Amino acid sequence: MSDAHQVAKDQLLSIIERIENLEEEKKGISDDIKEVYAEAKANGFDTKVLRAVVTIRKQDASEREEQDAILDLYLTALGMVK
Amino acid sequence: MSDAHQVAKDQLLSIIERIENLEEEKKGISDDIKEVYAEAKANGFDTKVLRAVVTIRKQDASEREEQDAILDLYLTALGMVK
Amino acid sequence: MSDAHQVAKDQLLSIIERIENLEEEKKGISDDIKEVYAEAKANGFDTKVLRAVVTIRKQDASEREEQDAILDLYLTALGMVK
Amino acid sequence: MSDAHQVAKDQLLSIIERIENLEEEKKGISDDIKEVYAEAKANGFDTKVLRAVVTIRKQDASEREEQDAILDLYLTALGMVK
Repeated sequence: MSDAHQVAKDQLLSIIERIENLEEEKKGISDDIKEVYAEAKANGFDTKVLRAVVTIRKQDASEREEQDAILDLYLTALGMVK
Repeated sequence: MSDAHQVAKDQLLSIIERIENLEEEKKGISDDIKEVYAEAKANGFDTKVLRAVVTIRKQDASEREEQDAILDLYLTALGMVK
Repeated sequence: MSDAHQVAKDQLLSIIERIENLEEEKKGISDDIKEVYAEAKANGFDTKVLRAVVTIRKQDASEREEQDAILDLYLTALGMVK
Repeated sequence: MSDAHQVAKDQLLSIIERIENLEEEKKGISDDIKEVYAEAKANGFDTKVLRAVVTIRKQDASEREEQDAILDLYLTALGMVK
């Protein structure tokens, strides 16, 4: 078999190992995040609400207020107290 | 090869086809849900807020109120207006 | 408040209830699928492999063969037996 | 309001910021992984098969062989060529 038909073994191995190392790093960070939440919980914080806060801080404030206003409108129409 | 080593072909096919039919049904219902949201959007409703309403209706009311109160507390502590 | 500023309550409730009913149906079908797998497992089938079979049957046969050939090539280059 | 009823503002902010920093790091690594795949694709590699290789390298070799054998058995019973 000529070189043209072969897969560049070194290049392939390098790609795979780079991906594996990055995935391991990513897994480590995910574990760190879980640990911060676990520590927060141990200190009396509500982790579900902490997650909501993180989400809210990513949102645009004016857009969030608008969505909240529409939500109030819908819940009121349905007879639900917000 | 004795029967004992064979896979029950009819049984296998029946299992696979039952799963495929159920998955097709499920896909059809997912499409129906998307259609209801699309129709609602065409009628001027905010689909993101509609999804929030559906989620809220699944929650226990008292638990939701408690979570909302904690969220207010956290956002106030962080100087964010809810 | 004039009608123009109100949400069409009946329309809103109808949308929400249609979504809730469809989601309940969808949940029922998901449960049925789980049950078929559980029954298959009880009859000695490997559910992980069954899932692979369902996936493979959705794929185009010629595309799948091509992907399998490339996979063999890569695994061989890496010194892994397929 | 007494201290007992207050949320520890500094502690809360510290938790939130640690989570936000970790999530940003995680996002950066996810982007790096995408980049490696994009680069591999540009060099003629099949990214779908690369992902399969990464998955296979995580699996136990003997378990994988056993699953492959069962898959062959099922596909043969269904009259499908592997």
